[in-house]
Amino acid sequence: MQSFDLDKTDLLRIKTALEGDDVDLELVLQGYHASEIAILFEQLPQEAKERIINILPTDVASEVLSEMDEEHSPGELLLNLHPEKRTEIVEELDYDDATDIISQLDEDEQQEILEDIDAEDASSIRALMNYAEDTAGGLMNSELIKVNILLDKKEAIDEIIRQSEEMEEFYTIYVVDDHNTLQGILSIKDVIKAHADAKVKDLVRIDPVYVKADLDQEEVARLISQYNLTTIPVVDDHMKLLGRVTVDDIIDVMEQENTEDILKISGVSEDEELSGNWKDAVKSRLPWLVINLATAYLAASVIRHFDDTVALVKGIAAYMTIIAGMGGNSATQALAVTVRRISLSNLTDRQAYNTVIKEFLVGLINGAANGLVVFCIALFYDGNPMLGLVLFLAMTGNLIIAGITGASIPLILKRVGIDPAVASSIIITTFTDCAGFLLPLYLATKLLLHH
Amino acid sequence: MQSFDLDKTDLLRIKTALEGDDVDLELVLQGYHASEIAILFEQLPQEAKERIINILPTDVASEVLSEMDEEHSPGELLLNLHPEKRTEIVEELDYDDATDIISQLDEDEQQEILEDIDAEDASSIRALMNYAEDTAGGLMNSELIKVNILLDKKEAIDEIIRQSEEMEEFYTIYVVDDHNTLQGILSIKDVIKAHADAKVKDLVRIDPVYVKADLDQEEVARLISQYNLTTIPVVDDHMKLLGRVTVDDIIDVMEQENTEDILKISGVSEDEELSGNWKDAVKSRLPWLVINLATAYLAASVIRHFDDTVALVKGIAAYMTIIAGMGGNSATQALAVTVRRISLSNLTDRQAYNTVIKEFLVGLINGAANGLVVFCIALFYDGNPMLGLVLFLAMTGNLIIAGITGASIPLILKRVGIDPAVASSIIITTFTDCAGFLLPLYLATKLLLHH
Repeated sequence: MQSFDLDKTDLLRIKTALEGDDVDLELVLQGYHASEIAILFEQLPQEAKERIINILPTDVASEVLSEMDEEHSPGELLLNLHPEKRTEIVEELDYDDATDIISQLDEDEQQEILEDIDAEDASSIRALMNYAEDTAGGLMNSELIKVNILLDKKEAIDEIIRQSEEMEEFYTIYVVDDHNTLQGILSIKDVIKAHADAKVKDLVRIDPVYVKADLDQEEVARLISQYNLTTIPVVDDHMKLLGRVTVDDIIDVMEQENTEDILKISGVSEDEELSGNWKDAVKSRLPWLVINLATAYLAASVIRHFDDTVALVKGIAAYMTIIAGMGGNSATQALAVTVRRISLSNLTDRQAYNTVIKEFLVGLINGAANGLVVFCIALFYDGNPMLGLVLFLAMTGNLIIAGITGASIPLILKRVGIDPAVASSIIITTFTDCAGFLLPLYLATKLLLHH
Repeated sequence: MQSFDLDKTDLLRIKTALEGDDVDLELVLQGYHASEIAILFEQLPQEAKERIINILPTDVASEVLSEMDEEHSPGELLLNLHPEKRTEIVEELDYDDATDIISQLDEDEQQEILEDIDAEDASSIRALMNYAEDTAGGLMNSELIKVNILLDKKEAIDEIIRQSEEMEEFYTIYVVDDHNTLQGILSIKDVIKAHADAKVKDLVRIDPVYVKADLDQEEVARLISQYNLTTIPVVDDHMKLLGRVTVDDIIDVMEQENTEDILKISGVSEDEELSGNWKDAVKSRLPWLVINLATAYLAASVIRHFDDTVALVKGIAAYMTIIAGMGGNSATQALAVTVRRISLSNLTDRQAYNTVIKEFLVGLINGAANGLVVFCIALFYDGNPMLGLVLFLAMTGNLIIAGITGASIPLILKRVGIDPAVASSIIITTFTDCAGFLLPLYLATKLLLHH
């Protein structure tokens, strides 16, 4: 299949087919991968989606549902299907996907779906629903291939083939003992190559990387990335094998965490759906703006304290906005670098200390460089060297404050267990606004008026 | 192996072992995974790194080098090793990793390394060095498992085992014809399960997702994510199989692209190393700050145009900073949501249009809500309803401008082929600063002074 991007033509083709009969529609749908249909669903009305799901073969229909973004309510779509079709689809779904979709529904709707399906499947899904969504347990799939460490080569291969019947793809074979305790992993290559009378215990690779079920999903992603894994086994406190997290789920986690980081650092609630409507966007952003309004009044009260200076020193009102603005942007730069660094690795105390020192130096130098420019303009354009000195000192001071706060606030938040990205530009710029107004106005009052 | 984070104790342990003899050091090193040693290297001096690489078994040493971040110069480390050790390590490296490391060096240093190694390896690495680093060709590894479509089951298994000798892990088996043209993929499960006289052509899954060698790495990442793949084959214009990109490389790409996005949107050069020193940080950020200084003067010139209004309307200097600041933050919110949305999927024209309309509405409502608060404060605190009206209109107007520019500028940049994240807050806030000063000052001049 040639890789391609979906465009208007694809949507139009589906929409036209929806006006025809089921046979035509089925034919058109065959040209699309399940994940593509999931994307096209975002622009189709509810009835169209239901009709398409009903026409698709069960395995494709279940994949479409598992590929749909949570914000487009695959749960609701599932609920509205004919109970028989619904049961078929749920039984076809991987347990982790079924859990994610069903968890979106109310408790009695969940019951309605779960009581129709195979009892064993239902109890596996119910077990997964107990784990918090953003932990290893919430991400894991309990379907995996495992063999007992006591088996020989022939038994192991039979077992692997038997267990893989129901799985689309397997990346890793886990080895357990009689008590389901994780012993290691087995490479299919080693099994195939092994001598006929080899035993699993001779082939097992011990000491695999594993995670506990309650580990935060960001940490799971970090381990998968650090050790270049395609799957990671999930165990309970007694090392019993519960399931595995696969790399495709981790890619989704990374996308989601990165979206949250970029939104939070920009003062948007992490829950805002990127393609949500204006009502949700107002709900997510207005609270931050109101906080910003309060802090802006704090900064503005600094200005009102110096009303006389503003009226008497020509140009100072304009200059102070430049110094505050430059501070805000410098702080945003320091903040972005620090937040991103924290999210990729855990910093030692020494690294954290060095980061703040570095940002102090960057602030000092960038402040002095820009301060010099402003000094020259005040000297040659305003013909006022003393005003130039005021502005030079204020610019340097504010960019130092910007560097120190931009680096230290996220580091402190991380240390006390708060998400460092919450130190959004909105919070940080309060410091640089206050200092950006206070420094030039205070210095101007002292050096230009009282002098 | 229990998953754990490296801390000071680990560094101390290595440093103490470095003072002892090689046998002790070797023993301590055995307790660490190659990727962990690569992280510890970040805090060790050059001589220590060379000594450790010399002590480690070749396969571990080569993995350490491939796991080192580019900014910690694995190329230089490799170059300084004894030529014999160096050749051993390069021949052990995967071609794509060897290419990445050797590409960091000067041309004559590259020659020095490549002429010592096996001629076939050297020519594979040279071929990979021709692809741009940020394309599918630059990411791909030419080592893979492929079988001819004409083989039968027994021949295929022998071939797979033979080719997998040199590979740590294989996820996918590719099927080609006599001319190395990609025909499809083969599941190891299907091969094992197949009847003894089955042929590859009966087992092959045709129509796999593939990419051309010059495709941008971000697009490769999007395809791997969309289709939940662990590897994707790379072909030339005639569908000849060149190599494959694996998901672990894609995870690195995603981390790198996300870092670049968050830095660019915050006005930091995308090339700044997160853990770089202050000199690099100044070099990366000062140009943006100077641009910002120029645009800040533009905004400030608006204020100077209204010097009389500033002097005569008590409090207007403080209020205009509030309105400009609120605009800047609203624009940053709209920008973050839009940039992130663009980087996760390609928007249709209709979706782009709807995004701008949505941000207009969000700006209107958030502007009116905050404008109302400011109106009330002007009314009750300043006792000036006309000033309140000026501020209400200016706040609403500026937040509408913020929403429209925050959404439309990245969308326009994307359309004309420029990275939308370049529309950093520094660029966008120029609009909201100018409008944030102009609107209240112009309205105050018209409604409060000339009235």
